This record gives sequence, C-alpha cells and structure tokens, in this order.
Amino acid sequence: MEKILWNHIQTVRTQSPLVHNITNFVVMNNTANALLAIGASPIMAHAHAEVQDMTGICQALVINIGTLDQYWVQSMLLAAQHTQKLNKPWILDPVGAGATPYRDSTLSELLSYKPTVIRGNASEILALARANTTPTKGVDSTAESNEAIEAAKQIAVEYGTLVCISGKTDIIVSQDKLIYLDNGHALMTRVTGLGCSATAVIGAFIAVIEDKTEALTAAMALFGICGELAAKKSKGPGTLQVLLLDKLHNITEKEFLQTIKLS
Amino acid sequence: MEKILWNHIQTVRTQSPLVHNITNFVVMNNTANALLAIGASPIMAHAHAEVQDMTGICQALVINIGTLDQYWVQSMLLAAQHTQKLNKPWILDPVGAGATPYRDSTLSELLSYKPTVIRGNASEILALARANTTPTKGVDSTAESNEAIEAAKQIAVEYGTLVCISGKTDIIVSQDKLIYLDNGHALMTRVTGLGCSATAVIGAFIAVIEDKTEALTAAMALFGICGELAAKKSKGPGTLQVLLLDKLHNITEKEFLQTIKLS
Amino acid sequence: MEKILWNHIQTVRTQSPLVHNITNFVVMNNTANALLAIGASPIMAHAHAEVQDMTGICQALVINIGTLDQYWVQSMLLAAQHTQKLNKPWILDPVGAGATPYRDSTLSELLSYKPTVIRGNASEILALARANTTPTKGVDSTAESNEAIEAAKQIAVEYGTLVCISGKTDIIVSQDKLIYLDNGHALMTRVTGLGCSATAVIGAFIAVIEDKTEALTAAMALFGICGELAAKKSKGPGTLQVLLLDKLHNITEKEFLQTIKLS
Repeated sequence: MEKILWNHIQTVRTQSPLVHNITNFVVMNNTANALLAIGASPIMAHAHAEVQDMTGICQALVINIGTLDQYWVQSMLLAAQHTQKLNKPWILDPVGAGATPYRDSTLSELLSYKPTVIRGNASEILALARANTTPTKGVDSTAESNEAIEAAKQIAVEYGTLVCISGKTDIIVSQDKLIYLDNGHALMTRVTGLGCSATAVIGAFIAVIEDKTEALTAAMALFGICGELAAKKSKGPGTLQVLLLDKLHNITEKEFLQTIKLS
Repeated sequence: MEKILWNHIQTVRTQSPLVHNITNFVVMNNTANALLAIGASPIMAHAHAEVQDMTGICQALVINIGTLDQYWVQSMLLAAQHTQKLNKPWILDPVGAGATPYRDSTLSELLSYKPTVIRGNASEILALARANTTPTKGVDSTAESNEAIEAAKQIAVEYGTLVCISGKTDIIVSQDKLIYLDNGHALMTRVTGLGCSATAVIGAFIAVIEDKTEALTAAMALFGICGELAAKKSKGPGTLQVLLLDKLHNITEKEFLQTIKLS
Repeated sequence: MEKILWNHIQTVRTQSPLVHNITNFVVMNNTANALLAIGASPIMAHAHAEVQDMTGICQALVINIGTLDQYWVQSMLLAAQHTQKLNKPWILDPVGAGATPYRDSTLSELLSYKPTVIRGNASEILALARANTTPTKGVDSTAESNEAIEAAKQIAVEYGTLVCISGKTDIIVSQDKLIYLDNGHALMTRVTGLGCSATAVIGAFIAVIEDKTEALTAAMALFGICGELAAKKSKGPGTLQVLLLDKLHNITEKEFLQTIKLS
C-alpha cells in the first residue's frame, strides 16, 4: 500500500493537475505554494463572472470557508454546483464550523453539492455532524481526532463523501473503513493554514487519482511526513513553513517509505 | 519591571487567548503566524453576518485599516461597537492615517468606540491628532517617534486610550507617563507588515493581562527584542521574517532580560 | 549598458519611490516585500473612495488582475484612468489572460488607458494579442517566450507600450527593438507570484528612471539575477522565496555584473 501511495505522488507530479481554489485570504499564498511544490498548478479565482469558467478548465475544486463573506459564499456555491454538474471531484474545508450560525448555514448549502472529500479538525467534523459536544474554539480544535469518528461516519453516509479528521492522528473515514496516519509534528499547529494547505494538496490528488480513498491517503501521508521531516530540522514555526515547502518539492521515495506510519 | 513583563509573556503562552483580527490583505498571514508563535490563537473573520458573533467568542479585537474598503469598514465598525458594548479590549492600527480623507474619516468613526490601545508610526499618530505637520508618505513614517509625543498625549486624553508610537524608539504614552523601548533593528523596516504584526501581538496581551500599560509594554518589548535578535542573524529581509517567527516562539527568559532596553 | 542598469538599481534604492499596487490576494505580501527589499515603498489600496487619491501621491501604479472581481476591476479602472490623466507611468500584469472571457474583456478596458509596460508570460501575451494558438493553461504558460514575439510587437505598436515576455528567456519588446535576458532558474516556476513580484519591481523602476526601456531591463535583470543566485543556494521553493528577498536587498555590483546575461 505504501508503495502505491508513493506512485500516486509521482502521478500528481507528472500530470500536474490544474486545481481551482476558492479559499481564504490568510492562506492563499501558502496553499498556492504547496500546490506548486508538489508539482500541481493552482488557480485562484472567485469572480461570479468567471468562477464557472475556471471550474470548467480545472480538474478539481478546493473550497475553504475560512474568511467567507456574502460575495465569496456565492462564488463557492456557483463553483460547487458547476463542479457537481461536470462530475469533477471537489474538497470542502469547513474552517471554523460550529463557531457561528453563519458558518453552519453556509456549510449546509455547500454540502448539498456533495463534496468528494471533507477535511477538518475534530471540532469542525463534530460541528458538521451537529454532534458537537464541546464548542469549537475558533479555528483550532478542542477535541481529539478519535472523538469525531462517529460524526465522520455519519457525514460519510449522509453525503456519500470521504472524511478526513486531521489532528495528532489523521483518520480517514469512508462508509466502510478507517485508515490511521500517525505522521506530523506538534510544531505544525503553530503555523497558520497548514490544514488549509493539506486540503489544497488533497485537491491535487483527487484531481488525477481514480481511487479517491487512496488519493486522500496519499495526500495526507505526503503532507504529514513532509511536515514531520521539516519540523525536525526547524527551530520554530518560521523555519518550519519554509522547510515544509522545500520538502514537499524534494522528498525522496526512501524518506517517504521510511517515515510513513499507516494503519 | 522587566521580570514582570517576562511573566506576562508566559501568561499569554499559557492562556492562549483567542484574538479576533479584522486586518489587511497584505499581512493576514504574518499576523496570524505571529499570534500562533507567541502561543495565542488567531481568528480572521469579517462577514457582517458573523463579525459580532466572532467578537463575542474572542477575548480581544484587532482592527487594522491597511486595505480598507466600504464592506470592511462596516465590518470594523460592527466589531468595534460590539466590543465596546461587551467591555472587551481592542486595539486600532491606523495604517496610512493622513494619506487620504477616506482613511481619516474612517478613523474618526472607529475612534468613537474608544480603543484600548492605538499603535502607529509617528506620521500616523500625528495625522490622527490632526497635528501632522509633515505629510504621511504612504504607510511608512517620515517623522521620528519623539515628534509625535504631544499628539499621542492629546489622543490619550481625548479618547482615554493608550498610544504606542513605534519607530526606531518605541514610546508608550498614557495620560500620565511615558515608557521608552529601544529594541528593534533597522532591517525590520524592510519587511512588510511588522508593525501590523506588533499590533496583533499587543491584541493577545491586552486580552489576558489586566494592567493594559504593562500588557502593551510587554508586547512591544517582546516584538522588538525578537526582531533585533532575528535581524542580527539575518542576511536580508527574507530571512528576518522567518527567524522573527522562530524567535517569537523560542525566546528564553535569559535572552529577553539581557536584550531589553527599557526606560 | 550593464553598468547603466546597475546605476538604475542604485537610483531606485536612493529615491525610494512610492508605488501604488492594485494586485491579487495571493501575492500581496510577496510583492510588498519585493518592493521593500529593493528600497522602494509599497502602498496597497483599492477602495473606490481613495484609489485616485493614492494614485495621486504615488510615482507609479501596478495593476495585476490575478484575483479580479467586479469591485476590484472598478478600482483598477479608476486608478488607471487617473494615472493616465496625471501622465504617470503604470504597468499591467495580465494574469491568466485568455483563460476566461471575463479576463479578456477586463484587459480590453484596462488597455485603453495605455500602460507604460505590460509584463506577462508567453501564453498571456499571445492571448492579449488575440493571437493565442495554444490555450492558456490557467496562470502558467504553455508557450515559449519567442513564440510570443510577434504578438508582443503588435501590442507594442497598437498601444504604444513596452512589452516584457517573461519565461526561461525574458524578452523585452519595444516598437523598434528586442532585448534578451537569460537569467533566472527553473525552480522559480515552483514559487507562486514571482512573475507578479517582477511586475511590482518594474513598477518601482519606471517610477524613477526616465528611459523606460532601460528601467524595464534593469528591473527584469535584477529580478532574474537575484532569483538565479537564490535558487543556486536553495533546496526547494520555500528557501528560494526567502533567499530571493534577501538577495534583492543585498546584491552587490560585482554579483550583478558577473551574472547578467544580456543580449
């Protein structure tokens, strides 16, 4: 399995998928750079006058509601609707789900266009399933990944989607199985937007890998491993951000296979 | 006093305050990262439909008018008004004050909600007091910090706020005293948004430190010292930006106490 | 000629021009930092209520349509119109030209205010001349620089503008001559917004250098050389982004003259 995941990483690099991102202002630069580092080609476009044209020429769509507002929500809905119509894959990052009613009602609308994948932290996945017992603390999680498994399963069944609960352990939840990834590093929580970058990277993988569970697993493994390797060489979050982009670009098969912790 | 300031830095790290930022597009990523590096938790949200909900769950508010427009000004006003009503602390960064009539009229409106702290360069503070004798050159200061002391005092009295004039020397101005900080480094003026990051960091300190003058002083000391230490190891502004985030994360008590220049 | 270009770099550093940028969300931070690194002073402002005031106090205008929408296009048009009226130089970066009808119609409107310089990749220049034979693949070029020379000449004649086709080789096209620059490095294509940063840097040079062809050549030479020198010391795109800003700040005359490949 690990070797298959590495091959998928090579496929993304070779095929260089065009990925349409409607994401938040805080992380646009980082997510574009993460996509370029893995060999994909990012597009950021949100104007109502062109958002569907862009979805049309891209191979996958990434929607992240981090700094949503009325105009951008409309962009997201137009893009998600068009993507569903075109049968293209898309991923939803429900940043801050549960923090405000506005986020929750927006997420309800977006979910109706059935994302291929949803990636969020445990608090967000719990909120999304309306099973949140501990309130979301802003955009950072107050819950552990395994507390959100039942919520994730419920979402997976209801919307026919894959769910990735990211955290200390990343858990990939489909309707019939669970995959655990134990890579990453605590310092990654001190850099803004790494979850958002992981989401964008997943976007590139679901764009070109047929088996979406494998695509999601390969993307999360790649991101977690690169973060872990980068963090070990970093003195703080500034360096980590830089070395993570380097590592996404120059990771070797040997590093990948020696570091991955999959179960 | 220096030891008290260090304790405040530890308090921020331990309590990890949630800080609501309505800031400019240029620096969002940097200010979020600066907050994470000192152990705080940033939220960026501006939609009219949720801005007051976010203010409600956060412990402090940061408003920065750098790339203001009609929609964002309305967001700022809604958030500032709600913050005042909830008796929570907030800080105003009057980027480019005096550069255009639109900035000045916006600042007048914001000031009516009585910020806890205002941080700006000398040109901006002079403009804010309508005592600007040299025109603001865009967003960078053309005046020295000490030229703005009278203007700062006037603002402190009129709005019952603390004022921090940042520059080669940072001067903290309250109604009855002046505190001088002589840390920092010239290379910091060659990195965009470091003033904005300082403002965000102050937001985290006023969120959890009762004595607001001490909170402001601790934040500015921390930021100036980390910038100074980072600059000494940097070959240019690119490296400085990275090492500053590292240092905000890993600064030791010894480094802090040996470097601080307070009077 | 090489020595004249170096002198222009010193002129920008000494005169520190104020450059008004209406650019895209992805690259705002990078382009501001690139301008600061070369000694210029960036302003980012787009509110309709102040955009012309800002153009009035700046020495050059940079327009980049990367993440355009209705509001921002109006800002760009107001600024371009006012700049033309004030006889100030401006540069247009036609990001993603040809990708959607919306981009193309926006570019038509902007071109009517006759930019001093247009900088784009070969696909964008071809699209701009409506001579695009290969479709634009998002924001990255699918064509080589020399395939766009005829298109660039046509634009240069029609709008009385200089055109820079950037790519593996950068080609500067005026109505009567071609200048080739062979600096840069392949790794630069793996960092987002380096083309946009080059555009901003050109904005600083046309602000203060009388001969616009020399200004454009000096800016592109500086950017390509710094990128090349930085890439040689980089293990990936993360480091490259950091070292490029350092090098824009600390490049020496010797490094510049030894590295430049001009013909």
